[in-house]
Amino acid sequence: MGTKSWVMLGMMSLLLGIGVGDWNIMNVKWKKRGVSISLKNYCESWRMNVELNNIRDFEVVPGECVYYIGKYMTSTQYKVDSVRALDECTLYLNSFFKLTGDGKDAWIFDIDDTLLSTVPYYKKHHFGGEKLNRTSLERWMKKKVAPAIKETLSLYNEIKGRGLKIFLISSRGEHLRDATVDNLIKAGYYGWTGLILRGSEDSDKDVQKYKAEQRKMLIGGGYRIWGIVGDQWSSLLGLPNAKRTFKLPNSLYYVS
Amino acid sequence: MGTKSWVMLGMMSLLLGIGVGDWNIMNVKWKKRGVSISLKNYCESWRMNVELNNIRDFEVVPGECVYYIGKYMTSTQYKVDSVRALDECTLYLNSFFKLTGDGKDAWIFDIDDTLLSTVPYYKKHHFGGEKLNRTSLERWMKKKVAPAIKETLSLYNEIKGRGLKIFLISSRGEHLRDATVDNLIKAGYYGWTGLILRGSEDSDKDVQKYKAEQRKMLIGGGYRIWGIVGDQWSSLLGLPNAKRTFKLPNSLYYVS
Repeated sequence: MGTKSWVMLGMMSLLLGIGVGDWNIMNVKWKKRGVSISLKNYCESWRMNVELNNIRDFEVVPGECVYYIGKYMTSTQYKVDSVRALDECTLYLNSFFKLTGDGKDAWIFDIDDTLLSTVPYYKKHHFGGEKLNRTSLERWMKKKVAPAIKETLSLYNEIKGRGLKIFLISSRGEHLRDATVDNLIKAGYYGWTGLILRGSEDSDKDVQKYKAEQRKMLIGGGYRIWGIVGDQWSSLLGLPNAKRTFKLPNSLYYVS
Repeated sequence: MGTKSWVMLGMMSLLLGIGVGDWNIMNVKWKKRGVSISLKNYCESWRMNVELNNIRDFEVVPGECVYYIGKYMTSTQYKVDSVRALDECTLYLNSFFKLTGDGKDAWIFDIDDTLLSTVPYYKKHHFGGEKLNRTSLERWMKKKVAPAIKETLSLYNEIKGRGLKIFLISSRGEHLRDATVDNLIKAGYYGWTGLILRGSEDSDKDVQKYKAEQRKMLIGGGYRIWGIVGDQWSSLLGLPNAKRTFKLPNSLYYVS
């Protein structure tokens, strides 16, 4: 079965409004370059290559992998993968961080799928298998119902407790400020030093550039950025950078 | 069962010269932050966080995950994950590459676990579960028996066929030049433009810095570096960089 056939299968299942069968379908096999591979192998390699930043700029999760990605993003494995990333932050801080006492030690977090989970939204939208409708996503954001990723919440509190200043740099637009603040507080996050959202002047800029510019301003203001936690490579790459970066898994969408 | 107990189990199995049981042990569960997780979850999250570049500078694969990592590095999944990364190179070249015709279009490859596989060596050394003995590894390299990763070989030939100049930049030392050339040719690789190995002046430098300096020299020589394929983040990060980079999976060891 070639890639085209899988795409067809995926599209058909979307049109019919159903997931691609159940877990059994993940064991369907075909040959590629002489190797017998299953749909599960294929989708797992898709996800791995998104995380490796080899697959970029995808607009939708491939139709034939929607079931697999949905399963992963709601699994224990996703939680364990995230917890491990966050544990590495703690390990790093324990090993290298020393508070200077001038109030200029800083840490950066993304918001969506780092502090707050958008999984409940994507659950209703084929787990990234349909093209993003920004209006619909923002309507959902305005409801302020995004739950905390509780493992990040505990890291957030730990970092705050160490005396670091917390900056949230998000690709959410300024018009979502009130909703964002309310949602964060409702989810248990408070006490940040800065909440940086995209103004209209930044709305056409690519996110990596916009976030790097914000870091430049913080550094210009004397801050030492000890770390960044984000779920997108665009939050973690580009100059100037933090001393360390930590990527959470997320294969639902791609922000370039 | 805490992390310590798993480490003990791993160390015991190493001392006894056996793998950590069989696949059944991967289903042993314990609780972490209220979530019931299996050893498989734990080891998979370790591997994922190595690939995400969250876990750095590890000297050995955790004892309790040696069996899992060995299984992965010899699995269909590892092959499929690698093939997907290489397919993305082709896709990128098809979409963006145009030969200039001045002989200055270039591509960079790592050698170990990119062109040639060291898996046969690590298979005999607990799949990264014991600390690297460089003398022993180099003795093996001098035997020139490392097999080609055949999926990379076909990409290598494709890239050569497109008229790009190929540079191999490796952290292998200059004293391994003859063995490396012989092994590469035996494995089917030939026709590269440059084979850059570490001279004694670079031997204490960290690999990321050394590789970035080599790219700087190539760019200084007028080359346009279209891409890098490597299995370590230290081959892909740092400035100056290529237009695109592609990371192959490798959780056997870490080169910083």
